[in-house]
Amino acid sequence: MKRLTLALSASLGLMLALPAAAQFQKPEDAIKYRKAAFTVMASHFGRLGPMAQGRVPFDAKVVADNIAIAATMSALPFAGFGAGTDKGDTKAKPEVWSEADKFAAAAKKMQDAMAALNVAAKSGNADQFKAAFGETGKTCKGCHDDFRKE
Amino acid sequence: MKRLTLALSASLGLMLALPAAAQFQKPEDAIKYRKAAFTVMASHFGRLGPMAQGRVPFDAKVVADNIAIAATMSALPFAGFGAGTDKGDTKAKPEVWSEADKFAAAAKKMQDAMAALNVAAKSGNADQFKAAFGETGKTCKGCHDDFRKE
Repeated sequence: MKRLTLALSASLGLMLALPAAAQFQKPEDAIKYRKAAFTVMASHFGRLGPMAQGRVPFDAKVVADNIAIAATMSALPFAGFGAGTDKGDTKAKPEVWSEADKFAAAAKKMQDAMAALNVAAKSGNADQFKAAFGETGKTCKGCHDDFRKE
Repeated sequence: MKRLTLALSASLGLMLALPAAAQFQKPEDAIKYRKAAFTVMASHFGRLGPMAQGRVPFDAKVVADNIAIAATMSALPFAGFGAGTDKGDTKAKPEVWSEADKFAAAAKKMQDAMAALNVAAKSGNADQFKAAFGETGKTCKGCHDDFRKE
């Protein structure tokens, strides 16, 4: 979460003054990026819902492959919440920035849950996967409830 | 490219009949996904442009970290070009589907260039990075010229 803390505490001026490490040229680029990273993560996570619910047969390889991608993606979107990215084409609530510590903690909770899910997914054990999938889904919902407009 | 070939040759009906492996519930989900994957890839690739052009100092870690993500992303978007995803909020030209073999070859060319760039990026050698970055950029442009509307 170093990057998030850094981004959240940096002024927009400071961000724009860091050409060597410039992640986004414009605030709207950061917003587009974070939404894209969430979209890819949610796609690979969400498509396993029916398997986690036992509605389709467990397939260890499908689970492991998709969760590995979701876990990789989980590290990315939070770099896109820097200062100056609160306005624009976004559903992010002002609390992302006004309660930055709480938001950072919610992000870390998701990332930790996703990492644990990745371990469970690699194990090939259906029950472990289902339990960890449910726990991870709760962290998604928790953060959406607090930090995303409907 | 197995997944792409599979997706491109499958009828929409067949795709929708594969619940266990269903990647996308609706064509618009696939379109949103592929655009998101390209957005994340382009962000991590594009931010290194100034460094590849020597306009900012070479930073081996920044290069390696960003290209590793771009290389991971390069595998993803082509699963989103399945049958039935030619209409909607997309700039993809009809040639993606009418010249599917050529599109698959262009996708592979980019993925191979990105893999070579990833090796160069990990080497920490600025000249190797710059050369491989340029080669990869050409594959992006080539595919956009042929398969993406302006």
